[in-house]
Amino acid sequence: MTARPGPDRVARAALTSIAEPADPVMAELLRHCSPAVVIAALIAGKALPWPAAMPALERARQRWSARLGEAPTADRLDAWQRDGLRFICPGDPEWPGQLDLLGPARPWGLWLRGNADLRFACLRSVSIVGTRAATAYGQHVCGEMAAALAERDWAVVSGGAYGIDSRAHQGALAAEGITVAVLPGGVDKPYPRGHHDLFLAIAAAGVLVSELPPGRTPTRPGFLVRNRLIAALSRGTVVVEAALRSGALNTARHARDLNRPLMAVPGPVTSALSEGCHEIIREWGAVCVTCAGDVIEMLAFPGDGGQPGPGGQPGPGRPAGPGGPASLFGPVLPRDALDPVTAQVLEVIPARQGRGPARIAVTAGVDFDTAMRCLGELTAGGFVERCDRGWRLRAARKGEGDAMR
Amino acid sequence: MTARPGPDRVARAALTSIAEPADPVMAELLRHCSPAVVIAALIAGKALPWPAAMPALERARQRWSARLGEAPTADRLDAWQRDGLRFICPGDPEWPGQLDLLGPARPWGLWLRGNADLRFACLRSVSIVGTRAATAYGQHVCGEMAAALAERDWAVVSGGAYGIDSRAHQGALAAEGITVAVLPGGVDKPYPRGHHDLFLAIAAAGVLVSELPPGRTPTRPGFLVRNRLIAALSRGTVVVEAALRSGALNTARHARDLNRPLMAVPGPVTSALSEGCHEIIREWGAVCVTCAGDVIEMLAFPGDGGQPGPGGQPGPGRPAGPGGPASLFGPVLPRDALDPVTAQVLEVIPARQGRGPARIAVTAGVDFDTAMRCLGELTAGGFVERCDRGWRLRAARKGEGDAMR
Repeated sequence: MTARPGPDRVARAALTSIAEPADPVMAELLRHCSPAVVIAALIAGKALPWPAAMPALERARQRWSARLGEAPTADRLDAWQRDGLRFICPGDPEWPGQLDLLGPARPWGLWLRGNADLRFACLRSVSIVGTRAATAYGQHVCGEMAAALAERDWAVVSGGAYGIDSRAHQGALAAEGITVAVLPGGVDKPYPRGHHDLFLAIAAAGVLVSELPPGRTPTRPGFLVRNRLIAALSRGTVVVEAALRSGALNTARHARDLNRPLMAVPGPVTSALSEGCHEIIREWGAVCVTCAGDVIEMLAFPGDGGQPGPGGQPGPGRPAGPGGPASLFGPVLPRDALDPVTAQVLEVIPARQGRGPARIAVTAGVDFDTAMRCLGELTAGGFVERCDRGWRLRAARKGEGDAMR
Repeated sequence: MTARPGPDRVARAALTSIAEPADPVMAELLRHCSPAVVIAALIAGKALPWPAAMPALERARQRWSARLGEAPTADRLDAWQRDGLRFICPGDPEWPGQLDLLGPARPWGLWLRGNADLRFACLRSVSIVGTRAATAYGQHVCGEMAAALAERDWAVVSGGAYGIDSRAHQGALAAEGITVAVLPGGVDKPYPRGHHDLFLAIAAAGVLVSELPPGRTPTRPGFLVRNRLIAALSRGTVVVEAALRSGALNTARHARDLNRPLMAVPGPVTSALSEGCHEIIREWGAVCVTCAGDVIEMLAFPGDGGQPGPGGQPGPGRPAGPGGPASLFGPVLPRDALDPVTAQVLEVIPARQGRGPARIAVTAGVDFDTAMRCLGELTAGGFVERCDRGWRLRAARKGEGDAMR
């Protein structure tokens, strides 16, 4: 929540209270009208100046009449902000652009709690999901994989649940990495309550995310709708352990439908909790991954691969080819898609010896905070890296090189 | 060995003593001359009437001069035959036609010991291979899979080695199935000696196979050359457990090169002995299989699949489509490729109630032994099946139906 939210921002916050995530009737209304107009029409009972939207408005009124009073008041929004929660909308600096690929199922907005920047975190992220009833084997493999990914600067996205999810978060935290928990209820009292301490740690080192407003408890269909966000936020999804009817396979299906790389960890064929993994390897073409290196190979950044330009930086203007994993992730990654200020900062980063952020800010002609923000994005994007003396261009790394392999 | 072997048969037996299996110089000679002419030229030192073959003959003389005396004498051949060994050549009724797909690497001939007919056994067979140092997990999965395949009338082909190989043979034997051991040395004293009792059981219920003559002990390169036969004899290959440098991956490579379905059983990613399996699933496109049903689905016969013809038999003249697993296995399987006598016998098999073999022989106008031979081939090919009252056409089975899936 910014200090002075505009009408659309307040309206989107109200939408998260009124309409279920990804609801098609609301999506249809938003195709015609701004969120503020939709909310005004719903609450004030006004007609819309777009006749084509009137049938959807009628359906919306019938469906959500009892909920219209639940839209948070301005006081309520202020209180949430004071409590450390924030609300982001499509187009905001922290909004992950890859969510726009969900089309009409894009969230109305996202409620966040935690210190990490969601957009930066997810630029270089992988979802790790699996069964709540994880075996010792699954927990071990999951924790090791998440920690190894975090050590190599990949954020770990998961759902905060018992079993595989929590091991994924814990593994990333143990390696001092960033982790993102996409919750099925409000971020103020995250579900499940038994993970209270884990959620505190995630908020400190990462971020808690929900489509639902604070105070909302999870519903059964809500879990499934939430799963699409886990798949959509990350560059790829790994299923660690899952029975044949596990909800993790729902997340896997979303990843597949979004054309994101889908991976699964094999296990003993004698374990029912590996059956789902083997099934998606065999029937869906999920890639069999056994370690973090396998995962990174699948998700390697364009900035890491191909022929490095002069000084080892990724060549300019070489977006990932069609069909490559990077091209599935939206327009953020190729160098020529960086916003002008970030590109300006990238221009002044030296190839070998590092340069400090104050000097970078001055050279690029931006203020210090802007330089830091751009450096964050460039680091997450694999363009630059920290070194002893500041920031420098990131050399293409061996072993991650062939993104198209 | 037939009672009165022709000169080419004796010559091929000599070739197995003289030239290494798949040796390209010998293959070049056989491209120009019959085996008898080659042997005569090598032993008698005569020139060949084909000038193009003379360079190869010169190389052969240099390479094998010391071995020419090792060709078995007629007495020796008789003695082996009395000991229950037999020698089959390309074109023999028991010769597995799929070996001809090896091209110049086709065996000169095969030494056999055991009661099963090699050709019939291999028509509906799967290779199960893996590490000698199998874990309890691998042994368990291997034994279960082999037994379940044998129960569904699939012969199990393997290499007779310790570990996975022996478990594959034992599993098939436990289910009273047919199993084929392709040995790296002579069939009279099969390697390894520690499997003496196992080899006796295989000879009783299946067959021992070698490219090398009786008395020959295995050599290190011989193991690798042998592996191509395991892959070539069977319709597909399953790797159960294999480290990254396991010889089983050599067999897997042969299967892949022969375009036979290649499968692997996943296991814990924490087990080095499953690394080879995961590698070929991930990098070679081997299919992840977890049970016999998965394997059969990959290898389903054309006789089992598609629309059944009248009375449930496979429709006539429907060879497997290009690229389907069955089409890779040579011309034996489609009904219109049956030899005329076998087709004649198939014509008189009833669809529902069984008919006894004597009646089948009379009706088809063949003698009893011929009828039994044809029924064996038709059973192995999935065209007919035994029932209480004799033989009947085999109905397309549920669950094995879609060979091209």
